[in-house]
Amino acid sequence: MTRPATKEPALDDAQLADLAQQLRVDAVRAAAAAGSGHPTSSMSAAEIGAVLLARHLRYDFDHPELPGNDHFILSKGHASPLLYAMFKAAGAITDDELLTFRTLGSRLEGHPTPRLPWVDVATGSLGQGLPIGVGVALAGKRLADLPYRTWVLCGDSELAEGSVWEAFEAAGAEGLDNLTAILDINRLGQRGPTRHQWDLDAYARRIRAFGWNTVEIDGHDIDAVDEALATARTTRGVPTAVIARTHKGRGVAEVEDKNGFHGKPLPHPDEAIRELGGLRDLHVHVRGPAEAEPSQPVGDPRTPLPHYDIGDSVATRTAFGEALTVLGSRRGDVVVLDGEVGDSTKAQLFAKEHPERYLECYIAEQQLVAASVGVGVAGWKPYASTFAAFLTRAHDFLRMATISRADLNVVGSHAGVSIGEDGPSQMALEDLAMMRSLHGSTVLYPCDANQAAKLVVAMADRPGITYLRTTRGDTPVIYASGEDFPIGGSKLVRSGPEDQVTLIGAGVTLHRAVAAAEILAREGVAARVIDLYSVKPVDAQTLRDAAEATGRFVTVEDHHPEGGLADAVLESFGNGHPMPLLTRLAVHTMPGSATPDEQLHAAGIDADAIAAAARKLVATPR
Amino acid sequence: MTRPATKEPALDDAQLADLAQQLRVDAVRAAAAAGSGHPTSSMSAAEIGAVLLARHLRYDFDHPELPGNDHFILSKGHASPLLYAMFKAAGAITDDELLTFRTLGSRLEGHPTPRLPWVDVATGSLGQGLPIGVGVALAGKRLADLPYRTWVLCGDSELAEGSVWEAFEAAGAEGLDNLTAILDINRLGQRGPTRHQWDLDAYARRIRAFGWNTVEIDGHDIDAVDEALATARTTRGVPTAVIARTHKGRGVAEVEDKNGFHGKPLPHPDEAIRELGGLRDLHVHVRGPAEAEPSQPVGDPRTPLPHYDIGDSVATRTAFGEALTVLGSRRGDVVVLDGEVGDSTKAQLFAKEHPERYLECYIAEQQLVAASVGVGVAGWKPYASTFAAFLTRAHDFLRMATISRADLNVVGSHAGVSIGEDGPSQMALEDLAMMRSLHGSTVLYPCDANQAAKLVVAMADRPGITYLRTTRGDTPVIYASGEDFPIGGSKLVRSGPEDQVTLIGAGVTLHRAVAAAEILAREGVAARVIDLYSVKPVDAQTLRDAAEATGRFVTVEDHHPEGGLADAVLESFGNGHPMPLLTRLAVHTMPGSATPDEQLHAAGIDADAIAAAARKLVATPR
Repeated sequence: MTRPATKEPALDDAQLADLAQQLRVDAVRAAAAAGSGHPTSSMSAAEIGAVLLARHLRYDFDHPELPGNDHFILSKGHASPLLYAMFKAAGAITDDELLTFRTLGSRLEGHPTPRLPWVDVATGSLGQGLPIGVGVALAGKRLADLPYRTWVLCGDSELAEGSVWEAFEAAGAEGLDNLTAILDINRLGQRGPTRHQWDLDAYARRIRAFGWNTVEIDGHDIDAVDEALATARTTRGVPTAVIARTHKGRGVAEVEDKNGFHGKPLPHPDEAIRELGGLRDLHVHVRGPAEAEPSQPVGDPRTPLPHYDIGDSVATRTAFGEALTVLGSRRGDVVVLDGEVGDSTKAQLFAKEHPERYLECYIAEQQLVAASVGVGVAGWKPYASTFAAFLTRAHDFLRMATISRADLNVVGSHAGVSIGEDGPSQMALEDLAMMRSLHGSTVLYPCDANQAAKLVVAMADRPGITYLRTTRGDTPVIYASGEDFPIGGSKLVRSGPEDQVTLIGAGVTLHRAVAAAEILAREGVAARVIDLYSVKPVDAQTLRDAAEATGRFVTVEDHHPEGGLADAVLESFGNGHPMPLLTRLAVHTMPGSATPDEQLHAAGIDADAIAAAARKLVATPR
Repeated sequence: MTRPATKEPALDDAQLADLAQQLRVDAVRAAAAAGSGHPTSSMSAAEIGAVLLARHLRYDFDHPELPGNDHFILSKGHASPLLYAMFKAAGAITDDELLTFRTLGSRLEGHPTPRLPWVDVATGSLGQGLPIGVGVALAGKRLADLPYRTWVLCGDSELAEGSVWEAFEAAGAEGLDNLTAILDINRLGQRGPTRHQWDLDAYARRIRAFGWNTVEIDGHDIDAVDEALATARTTRGVPTAVIARTHKGRGVAEVEDKNGFHGKPLPHPDEAIRELGGLRDLHVHVRGPAEAEPSQPVGDPRTPLPHYDIGDSVATRTAFGEALTVLGSRRGDVVVLDGEVGDSTKAQLFAKEHPERYLECYIAEQQLVAASVGVGVAGWKPYASTFAAFLTRAHDFLRMATISRADLNVVGSHAGVSIGEDGPSQMALEDLAMMRSLHGSTVLYPCDANQAAKLVVAMADRPGITYLRTTRGDTPVIYASGEDFPIGGSKLVRSGPEDQVTLIGAGVTLHRAVAAAEILAREGVAARVIDLYSVKPVDAQTLRDAAEATGRFVTVEDHHPEGGLADAVLESFGNGHPMPLLTRLAVHTMPGSATPDEQLHAAGIDADAIAAAARKLVATPR
């Protein structure tokens, strides 16, 4: 896998200046062809792009999978025309493809996505590139010893996002000298001037305070950019931020440093191209990566899963932590990240056994998810855990991770009112809705420890975002450790030929549904009980069979009524399948503090409430 | 409303030290009685609480509504025992009530909520108190000239949250000298040591870089705390952060500065109380607020709403901006906050007319929502706007705002694939799910300009979180400007006695549903069309009538299939109502870039797709 040293002479400064103009011209052309896009935001960073590509980036465009490749993340994703112009200059795409920008079917989307093999992650929601870059850099330094460097090009507007400061904090504390942030300070946001405009020192002061090296430059000075990126490459022990003063729309007088030209093609592209020196066709030979082998520990796939005895009481969060620890022994690629609550989520069990693959992200859930996406980019299997309620903090990062086609395991503990006394701020009551609505996601909600353990293993190889919801309190073990729980399946916990109603629960409510069925049985009402541990995808066939057999469903969930279990059940009856009568029990009220049992009772999702709803529904004529 | 100066002598330093011990003892007692809670996190801030209460806070506990009252926000909400002990010392609650901590029905929840009249906002999700405090302080300084001061007590763990740095940035830039952050640096997080432990200067450097004054003190030194809070009160032009070195569990050797005692009662509370000097019953006379009158501009309620002519094409985002501007003229209490995209959301129209009531929050959506909650605390009607997709960034703030019982209007533009070329990072496809799942929320999705304008006005007085989803592109005006659109209603756009199927849309898809009905009519299939502009609450009666009349529904939404329009429709059939056959059309795929029409076609939510689904459903036997 040795890369030959380039034989072509490096571009001199004059040629680099020319290359920068070419990048501008191509950005202007792409946006003009599309009739939309962000050429002015691209033009401010043209020298940065040119110098990075020609002199500092080490990347094999023919082999983007090489472990030694640098990573370049365009955090200001709206400057996609610049990125695509760089790809063209590197010979990765043709001019014809460049001009497909933003058209139906093109890989060159309005904001970059990994439909292009040289794009690690989707950007376009600002303030995400740097936190993800932290994850990529952590993987290269903490998880393995790889020679690559991570370059993140940020805009100035996005520096208002707190997530960026979570990243500055994490990178500074971890001493990520393999990470460089290049800040394109072009003074103008979408609506008008940024808060600090060209006060480079305002940014530098802040970033230095977070433990970074900073370099302030004129971002249109080829030499200055070159020297700054060289400084970034050679600075040891701390990450470097290159803070570049630039002009939005640089090079075209009609738009340069003028407000009102954000996110639109130039008004007179032909004249602009002339002003920029016309068309060019410069090609850059990008230096290949250093030789590197991926290095992940070797696991022992025979390490046995924990098993729990029927009748014992074990919290699913504990089973998660124990199974995850075993998974870490089985597989060397598993990495666990937690938001400083590992003692509660039980991710700490993994940390004790595999400290070298545990990344403490402190109470910064955006950085937690971003770092997880980043270590995934570098070839690891991330499990990110925190309280389920606090995953809402990272909703936008999860959303963008789906566009990044990221494979990401997310575990949320302390779901629902059943946590008890801590009160509503700690209760996830919206997490199923959030996680189900993510494109291509999987949502799992185990009710017992053996089921949780099996699902922890199953999720490892699931594509997309896979979410596991765990419970704080102990729940009885009802399944033998040998049972299987395929994703997309369910368990018929109780059924018979005379079933009049189907009770559907998952997690804590499954046990209440079983108890309700026992109450009903004593009254002569036969109730089927389904454990819907796979909330998405849902076991449509079992549900349809139950609808046909009983005609009546009671769903019960420790979640708000919207977007959770009941809605998942009803999805099985889209496309014209006859629907059962349904009563949905869920948390309609605002909880306070109380014991877990009191909470379930107050919310109307305990066994008595389920039995009452079933009784009423059985008496309803169809 | 003049407040009498206190006649009681102020507590001297020795008495304050005693008061601090009393706060510790009461925190220990409350947690011991509850069997849970966070006494050690309370004990580190006991001197801070004592000095603040006795010497610096100006607050009338009998009249929490007074506009001159200071605001005290316990951002480290888990230290609620300290807060409740302070309330007891101030005479606001009895000792008996203190000991109801965390029990069913008690106002003294595990984390504070506004069920207590002296609590402005719920806390417990870390990193929210300071951003909300920024909003409260902004209201006192920028929107009105009120003498109150906002005090926010933060923990050290939560300083890892990016939202806190959004707040430092905003407060520094706005020069909020009426805001004080008190940082309780007790070195220990939940799982173990914080990143910076007792490195006070690590915090001070960062905070100073954001333009704040900082004071570093020993947080257990009464004099030092007193002097620091006095400095904070008298510092002009910049906010002050008091950075206090403290010991978690201070005063009880068994737990003081020891790991492993987070979030649990003390192991030996009786001995701890003895060690702390036993029970006390000190009462503090808290100084009343300065005299102040609320000052809001007077509006002219007769200012006419914009109206649009049937057949014109107008984007609902434009109608939102125009109606909001009129609403600002009608009512002096309306405040608009935007995330630096006001030119896109059209909030900028309001900014031009009412610049003094427009707060630019830059690209920091957490701070945007937090500031909105904060100005709401101060008695204003906030409208917070940004791209709907980026509201996911503030999901946890919206969630907590429901626990705060905040009245908050949120407007998200650029919803769905219909935005076109910008691609999926800019498309809200999960926002309906997120907003519907919030407790007590209202979700509105207008399809035409007159409807949007009416809803902008209607939402102003709606309690809870009210969400308006707007569309980027122009849509035809189909309703006369005189029509009414009550929240909870719907519009029967097309119906007849022979209807065989009901097509249900909202926003952009309503127009496609109408077009599909026309296609079907030409084929002899009569289709009813419902405009479900009120997605939550939903018009259950109209839907049930349609189900009875047609038995078949096609729902069509520019949103992922989970948690949106279809699920809202099906909610009407909970509690055992017979359900229609249903086909749900939604965005199942990952979009790329394309024109709006191409996007709707590719997602299968255009008129042809609706007509095809309806044809198939009509042919399905029931």
